[in-house]
Amino acid sequence: MHVVLASASPARLSILRGAGLDPLVEVSDVDEDALLAAVPGATAAEKVTTLAGAKATTVARRIGAVDAVVIGCDSMLHMSGTLVGKPVDADDARARWREMAGGTGELVTGHAVLRMVDGEIDRVAEGHAVTVVRFGEPTDDELDAYLGTGEPMRVAGAFTLDGLGGWFVEGVDGDPSNVVGISLPLTRRLLAGVGVGVTDLWRSVDVASDRPAASD
Amino acid sequence: MHVVLASASPARLSILRGAGLDPLVEVSDVDEDALLAAVPGATAAEKVTTLAGAKATTVARRIGAVDAVVIGCDSMLHMSGTLVGKPVDADDARARWREMAGGTGELVTGHAVLRMVDGEIDRVAEGHAVTVVRFGEPTDDELDAYLGTGEPMRVAGAFTLDGLGGWFVEGVDGDPSNVVGISLPLTRRLLAGVGVGVTDLWRSVDVASDRPAASD
Repeated sequence: MHVVLASASPARLSILRGAGLDPLVEVSDVDEDALLAAVPGATAAEKVTTLAGAKATTVARRIGAVDAVVIGCDSMLHMSGTLVGKPVDADDARARWREMAGGTGELVTGHAVLRMVDGEIDRVAEGHAVTVVRFGEPTDDELDAYLGTGEPMRVAGAFTLDGLGGWFVEGVDGDPSNVVGISLPLTRRLLAGVGVGVTDLWRSVDVASDRPAASD
Repeated sequence: MHVVLASASPARLSILRGAGLDPLVEVSDVDEDALLAAVPGATAAEKVTTLAGAKATTVARRIGAVDAVVIGCDSMLHMSGTLVGKPVDADDARARWREMAGGTGELVTGHAVLRMVDGEIDRVAEGHAVTVVRFGEPTDDELDAYLGTGEPMRVAGAFTLDGLGGWFVEGVDGDPSNVVGISLPLTRRLLAGVGVGVTDLWRSVDVASDRPAASD
C-alpha cells in the first residue's frame, strides 16, 4: 500500500520519514483563499480541517491510486483571537514576534486521511489537534539574527519548533508533532479509522538503526 | 569558537544540527554508576545534572580547547517514583510499556555548559528541565511491531519522541527538545550564562534553507 502525502511541507515529510514512513509527495493545487471564503463563519479547527480534506481529496482524484492512503494537513497559528499564516516580510515577522514573545498561541492542524481502493476513495477520516505553544523572549539581537536567516518568513506563525525557532520556544502543551505540521498520534487514529494499522506502513528495514536514537 | 557536544547520542546531535549548530562530538568515559553511587540521596534532577557536569568536565579537560563551549547532558525517565534508563531487553521494554501506556512520566534532562578560554574551564552554567510525557496506548500488535524494530531497547525510558515512538506519545507538557535529550531554550540560557549568544554559534550559511521548514 502506498502512502501519499498531499503537502509540499518538507517538515511534514521529515517527521513522517523519521517515524518510519516513506511517503510519496503529491502537492495539491487547492485555492485556499477561495475555500476559506466559502466557510466564513468556520472555527479555526473547521478551517484547517476543510483545507486538509480539500488537499487530500484533490490529490486522491488526480493520482487515482489502486491501493493507497492519502494524507492531507493544514496548519495555522491561532493567537489573540486571530488566525495567522506566513508573514509577508521581515517587518511583519518582527511585529509578530514582538506580539508573541513571552505569550502563548495555539497551533491548530487539520488532518484528512483517505483510503483508496481500486482507484476510488473508499473511506475517509478527518480530525484536528490543538497544541499550545509558549513562546520565549528573544533579545533584539537574537530576533535580528533569526529574521536574518529567512526561516520565520517561510513558515506559518513565523516560527518553527524543529528548526532555529526551537531556541525561542519555551515549551508546548500537547503533541509537538502537531506543531511541526502533522500529529503522529492523531494520524495513527485516523489511519485506524480507515482500517489501516500504522505499523503495517513502516519500512520493513530496521528503521530505528538508520536514524537518531533518543538520549542516553 | 568551537561547540563540543560531550555525548554519543545521535538524537542530541541531530537536534542541535537542526537548530543551526555544527558541534564536534567528544564522548566522555564517565563511570555513571560510580558517580550515582556517590550521591545516594540525590533527586532525579541532581542526578542527571551531576552526570551532565561530569561528562562535560571530562571532555573539556581531555580536549583542552583554546576557545570552546562544551555541552554535556544526561536524561532519565521518572515514573511512579523511580528513575529508569534503557531497558535490558525486549521483555523489559514490553513490561515498561504495559506500565507506561495511558499514563504519564517525567523526562528529566540535566545540562552543563562549560566555557573554555585558553584551554582552561573559565565559566560553568548548569541546570535541568522537566517535561511531562503523556503516553498513548499501543495495541498488542503495535507494541510487538515496535519492539521488533529494536528502537525501544536502545533508549532511556523505552520510547522516543522523534522516532517511531512518536506514534505512541499523545503529547507533552514542557519543552519537547528536552525529551529528545537537550533542551534548546535551557541551553540558550546556559550559554548566555557563560557569556555566549546562541545566535553567534549558528552556521553562517542560511541554515534554514538546508532543512525542513515548518508547515504551510
